Amino acid sequence: MSAPPVCVIAGGVGAARMLRALLPAVDPSKLTAVANVGDDLVLHGLHISPDLDTITYTLAGEINPETGWGLRGETWQAMETVGRYGGIDWFNLGDRDLGTHLYRTQRLTEGAGLATVTAEIARAWDLGLTLLPVTEDPVRTRITLAEGPDAGREVGFQEYFVQRRHGVAVAAVRVDGAEAATPAPGVLEAIGSAERIVIAPSNPLVSIAPVLAVPGVAEAVTARRDRVVAVSPIIAGAALKGPADRLLTELGHEASVVGVARLWAPLASTLVIDEADAALADAVAAEGVTPIVTRTILAEPGVAESLARIVLDGAGPR
Amino acid sequence: MSAPPVCVIAGGVGAARMLRALLPAVDPSKLTAVANVGDDLVLHGLHISPDLDTITYTLAGEINPETGWGLRGETWQAMETVGRYGGIDWFNLGDRDLGTHLYRTQRLTEGAGLATVTAEIARAWDLGLTLLPVTEDPVRTRITLAEGPDAGREVGFQEYFVQRRHGVAVAAVRVDGAEAATPAPGVLEAIGSAERIVIAPSNPLVSIAPVLAVPGVAEAVTARRDRVVAVSPIIAGAALKGPADRLLTELGHEASVVGVARLWAPLASTLVIDEADAALADAVAAEGVTPIVTRTILAEPGVAESLARIVLDGAGPR
Repeated sequence: MSAPPVCVIAGGVGAARMLRALLPAVDPSKLTAVANVGDDLVLHGLHISPDLDTITYTLAGEINPETGWGLRGETWQAMETVGRYGGIDWFNLGDRDLGTHLYRTQRLTEGAGLATVTAEIARAWDLGLTLLPVTEDPVRTRITLAEGPDAGREVGFQEYFVQRRHGVAVAAVRVDGAEAATPAPGVLEAIGSAERIVIAPSNPLVSIAPVLAVPGVAEAVTARRDRVVAVSPIIAGAALKGPADRLLTELGHEASVVGVARLWAPLASTLVIDEADAALADAVAAEGVTPIVTRTILAEPGVAESLARIVLDGAGPR
Repeated sequence: MSAPPVCVIAGGVGAARMLRALLPAVDPSKLTAVANVGDDLVLHGLHISPDLDTITYTLAGEINPETGWGLRGETWQAMETVGRYGGIDWFNLGDRDLGTHLYRTQRLTEGAGLATVTAEIARAWDLGLTLLPVTEDPVRTRITLAEGPDAGREVGFQEYFVQRRHGVAVAAVRVDGAEAATPAPGVLEAIGSAERIVIAPSNPLVSIAPVLAVPGVAEAVTARRDRVVAVSPIIAGAALKGPADRLLTELGHEASVVGVARLWAPLASTLVIDEADAALADAVAAEGVTPIVTRTILAEPGVAESLARIVLDGAGPR
């Protein structure tokens, strides 16, 4: 195949589904995902990379359909023991899934970089594509809560997202460690050489922004703006999954495709929006971003194929 | 109850069975086990304490009867995932058991000492007795191999014991970190205040010796020598389980109750030996240790009760 190289700026679930849609339409050896590690955490001594794992498990066809994260066919014996001791059990880890964190942690302890370990895990699941953490350095998305007993307190991303089930208003998001981080090996090259760069329909503020916060990454994407297509995670003012709509509003953005267009205008020349938002196409264009109106709900029949085609064909220089 | 305090110097399996035999005969609140941590290891980022766990699980009635270690009702999903990645899977960890290592590691990360964490785990299993790691400092039993492709190489205890199934001759045993270690809170007090001190029928060289190697411990036991009774792990020249007999020979000792008597003579006034070794009682006495001949195989009916009585009554000043 002489398919052109494609690079996807990726969060977790939304990106995983976008990548799954793209895979049949591209040469996997030329598809690179540059993924968020801002929601990584160290818990029970284990290095956990939720977005990397969601992408890996989804593309392996092994994502747990009941939970939307972790592996299918899970058991929960380890967490049951942790619970017996009164340990931290709000971040649920299935027994199968735990093996990934055990392996990753051991390899990191041995001195392997996160990119190397991620590649080893991807290879074991026969993913085909190249999955890169945006950086091997510790960057951590931190959330300042705006309400409840902890109002004003800054907590780790998972304490907001999982422990509080993203049910509390947010005052600020900060990516700790970003300034000191450097892109992982291959990240800038993948962005620089891609014919198409896709900003996945992941949460813009807590999934994509932490990727772009690593010095050099936003610049590399911006330099290729005419080849960058973003897919809106907001459909008719709401996120398909997760708190993206609430977060946009709480942090002073507009929870609409126009708000998304405003966010990505410096980086992307094109924004794919859902048919439900067709009436906002002109407003998107007014932000300096070319709208493409199409069906975008990947779970619906036929959408994966058509969206992949549009993303791959529609974002080139015109 | 006004039962006198009892302290057991403990390795893993042999000590766990001895403690299980003692428990019905003593006031659990006055029973303390001072246990080996020389075979602890950090693997997959997790702090694993095999001897503490074997004691805990055995006394909880939850030891895995199929393996002799770990928890009953185990599944092995995490290790299966590790295996998929080509990770380290020779040290098998069941999913239920993993929860213990997750909890311990998290608590140590939070700054809790190993003695505190061990007490928390023991409490969760309603053990009753006090289980103390001999030290909270990192001491590691290291084994110099005497044969095979790695002859002359020093390896971690579990690389000898589990990875090589203790099937290779040993040239030397060293307890790394012992000189710098201090006894855990309560250890010297438990030894100093005990009316009976029991050296459990654990491997003398790789289970009990690492306990005694922590500065102050051997001295504290020796100071109470007239109250110290050892139970021989060697019966008719062989260990019930594990490589104690081979190790004794390989390291220049005699694999017999006489060899054991020679080892413990500076610390113990009494040695309990099995009826199978009755003919060696005089030779034991010749080493300066009073022999008590009785049935010692704890798995046999009635032996737990009689051995507990003998250990508790027979070792006092006479």
